[in-house]
Amino acid sequence: MSTFTLEELARRFDLEIHGDPKQPVSGLATLAAAGPNDLGFLANAAYTDQLGECQAGALILSENMLPRWPGNALVTANPYAAWARVAAFMNPRTPAPAGVHETAWVDPDATVDPGAAIGPQCSIAAGCRIEAGAEIGPGCVIEAGAVIGRHSRLVGRVFVGENVVIGQRVLVHPGVVIGADGFGLALDQGQWLKVPQMGSVRIGDDCEIGANTTIDRGAIEDTVLEEDVRLDNQVQVAHNVHIGAHTAIAGCVGIAGSTRIGRYCMIAGACGIGGHLTICDQVIVTAMSTVLDSIDQPGEYGSGIPARPHARWKRILVRLGQLDDWARRLRRIEKQ
Amino acid sequence: MSTFTLEELARRFDLEIHGDPKQPVSGLATLAAAGPNDLGFLANAAYTDQLGECQAGALILSENMLPRWPGNALVTANPYAAWARVAAFMNPRTPAPAGVHETAWVDPDATVDPGAAIGPQCSIAAGCRIEAGAEIGPGCVIEAGAVIGRHSRLVGRVFVGENVVIGQRVLVHPGVVIGADGFGLALDQGQWLKVPQMGSVRIGDDCEIGANTTIDRGAIEDTVLEEDVRLDNQVQVAHNVHIGAHTAIAGCVGIAGSTRIGRYCMIAGACGIGGHLTICDQVIVTAMSTVLDSIDQPGEYGSGIPARPHARWKRILVRLGQLDDWARRLRRIEKQ
Amino acid sequence: MSTFTLEELARRFDLEIHGDPKQPVSGLATLAAAGPNDLGFLANAAYTDQLGECQAGALILSENMLPRWPGNALVTANPYAAWARVAAFMNPRTPAPAGVHETAWVDPDATVDPGAAIGPQCSIAAGCRIEAGAEIGPGCVIEAGAVIGRHSRLVGRVFVGENVVIGQRVLVHPGVVIGADGFGLALDQGQWLKVPQMGSVRIGDDCEIGANTTIDRGAIEDTVLEEDVRLDNQVQVAHNVHIGAHTAIAGCVGIAGSTRIGRYCMIAGACGIGGHLTICDQVIVTAMSTVLDSIDQPGEYGSGIPARPHARWKRILVRLGQLDDWARRLRRIEKQ
Repeated sequence: MSTFTLEELARRFDLEIHGDPKQPVSGLATLAAAGPNDLGFLANAAYTDQLGECQAGALILSENMLPRWPGNALVTANPYAAWARVAAFMNPRTPAPAGVHETAWVDPDATVDPGAAIGPQCSIAAGCRIEAGAEIGPGCVIEAGAVIGRHSRLVGRVFVGENVVIGQRVLVHPGVVIGADGFGLALDQGQWLKVPQMGSVRIGDDCEIGANTTIDRGAIEDTVLEEDVRLDNQVQVAHNVHIGAHTAIAGCVGIAGSTRIGRYCMIAGACGIGGHLTICDQVIVTAMSTVLDSIDQPGEYGSGIPARPHARWKRILVRLGQLDDWARRLRRIEKQ
Repeated sequence: MSTFTLEELARRFDLEIHGDPKQPVSGLATLAAAGPNDLGFLANAAYTDQLGECQAGALILSENMLPRWPGNALVTANPYAAWARVAAFMNPRTPAPAGVHETAWVDPDATVDPGAAIGPQCSIAAGCRIEAGAEIGPGCVIEAGAVIGRHSRLVGRVFVGENVVIGQRVLVHPGVVIGADGFGLALDQGQWLKVPQMGSVRIGDDCEIGANTTIDRGAIEDTVLEEDVRLDNQVQVAHNVHIGAHTAIAGCVGIAGSTRIGRYCMIAGACGIGGHLTICDQVIVTAMSTVLDSIDQPGEYGSGIPARPHARWKRILVRLGQLDDWARRLRRIEKQ
Repeated sequence: MSTFTLEELARRFDLEIHGDPKQPVSGLATLAAAGPNDLGFLANAAYTDQLGECQAGALILSENMLPRWPGNALVTANPYAAWARVAAFMNPRTPAPAGVHETAWVDPDATVDPGAAIGPQCSIAAGCRIEAGAEIGPGCVIEAGAVIGRHSRLVGRVFVGENVVIGQRVLVHPGVVIGADGFGLALDQGQWLKVPQMGSVRIGDDCEIGANTTIDRGAIEDTVLEEDVRLDNQVQVAHNVHIGAHTAIAGCVGIAGSTRIGRYCMIAGACGIGGHLTICDQVIVTAMSTVLDSIDQPGEYGSGIPARPHARWKRILVRLGQLDDWARRLRRIEKQ
């Protein structure tokens, strides 16, 4: 990592300096670990107590924290966003060199831009288009007719099914499967009949898709992620789901078929969202909740139950089973 | 897609025509998107309202919907099954060409039928048998002694462990892992000791296994899926589970070790099924439920809680914690 | 499998013989399937009833079961651990031959010990170190700077990200992704900004990681698994999680970012553990529970609800929604 002064960083990222503008910064660290040449940040009030012991050369923080921090600071209204920008700048990623790795297989009928990078052990099928600046990491499989947009990156071991279209600057983590068949079955004389899954998947610009997440192709029309959708690891997106722009979905969430989720929603970890629902914009769902009805009002929703000591929880479970009986008894008493 | 008349489709699939037998059909579409040469279908009563605006050249539907639909129709008691058949016929998949791709590795001691297709970047170990018509898509790994039955298809990036046996016409989606070790551990003097997982996995004919699903090998005997079992994405099947024929399991379900699930069961998304249980035939489990006891009566079971506005849910959670106290108070009142 | 006498096994594993020391054992089987030359075991009291019909040549069991079993026995206080040792001895795994497979790609700047085995279709990037006795199975991707310790085994199709360090004798099952970016996002003027994930992942000695499990790299510092941590399939470990030695986590568990789990914990299947929590040593969490608060006392915790017949569960759900109203009504009655 190169060394920068606070002055240089402040100018580049439009931050306000408190303290010594010449303070050098050559590393990035947590509050607890930062040394005299490291830059840290404070964005979560829960860590305010660590300011007292903090040895950082400088911190990115908001103005209201200045009374608690006597050292050098880069001040901004949104310290976490500033940290994201400064850290990306000080710690840039070297893109993979353009070209096709000698162990990759590229079908002669695929179109790979000379500015794209195809890593070892990849398989790129006929009719694909890999645009300029795209990086296809080791072991990826891109099936016939798929498109990977400019500057998108498939980190490695990603599967992209037939005719899937991925926009620009999309980041796809390892193990992701985009465009497997949706779960469409018709019961016919005691046997399951597969319903052809003829749609595809469209991923908008600036999306990020976490490791081992799965996004199924649509049954007739496409499954769609609008731009800037962010999915964490092991999310399951069923066929014909539509996710609005800027929605973020945490790990292990499952979304059943044909559900429409709005823009700027935030779904916490391990939730289950039923099928054929419509969730409006700006809905927050708390961890491990089950959404079984459409939601037409922005706000926070949930049904997760925090764990308790097992003996106490077991008593509650017993009472839960008696609720119906109690309701009747309570009503009887009221009548008297 | 070729063009067919309703007459041709009706004859081939034993459907009844209402309207013009000469109506041409050259595309397949949803009720909302269908144009004058497209065929659509109505199988879910929730979409009946869309019939009014529908522009389709013809629809597959059941007789009781005819009064709501003035256009051409192919009538059948099971429109979804008829749709599955017609769509598969009009939209056939081209199988991969037989033969071993130049970038695939096939151990000299593996047996690959000349009518099987081995895709790019595959690895087929010694002692495997890949039968006629089987398609092994790009990036698959088949370990020693495994068998892939006739006309089964591993779409891509599938892992099949040692001695796993996959039947005929099985469809395995990308990222699936069949035959990893089960989670068998013995605590011994403060350290975990691995319990060897010596069984394998047997997958019956006509099964379908969704993306990133995992099916562990048995500890001593085999983990078994009978014929026509349908697993959606990200399902976890632990060691020595036995799943009966025609059972369908939706996404994100986890099934713990040695549990036996009957025939014609339907498990909705994100359920957890405990270990060492026996679930009888024709059990339905609703979404995000936890099954911790054996079930010996067919029917519907559940424990999922639908999400509510968070403020209301928090009040319910508080009351839940007071239930035991209330029960006592209610009883005291009754005594008076 | 070779044949051994009870005498040989007893001497080698320090077990006590009851019955004929010369009894030969040439196979390993369940109580129900064992024949006259097979060895079985009884470690779970639930299977005691099977002793009556059991045909095994000998059983490993604890002393208190001897009155129920008239046949030959190897007696020990911990039959499951003894079974693990004997089974591993009688059923040894042949390690892959050392060397680099002809279809693998190893960057010239990677260091592969001559005693390591690199399987077909692998990709090993610059700066990696693969130590002696390590086995990298087919289709694995090891990114720049990663270390795979002595005698560790990546079964196949594993992804190991940049600079990840895996200790000795670690077993990683197929589809695992170690070192993908954590889910770090800052909202900035209506767009998500990616927060660079600059830490890595450290996996201690003797860990085991189940199929399709994901372990994200840390945001600034590392995500850490101490030694002998055992993760089942489809577990999600977010950035900066720290898991203490000898903790075992069952399938489909999700752990949110920066949570610290103690030593000798056991987390049952499909639990969700919130972020920024501290769970002390020796905590047991029961299946499908949601942990949203730190835990500072060893013991058992839970919030899972066992499924009931759906009609009954629906009535309970109705009552659950009325709880707040009831509490008020009960209090009114008490006042009277």
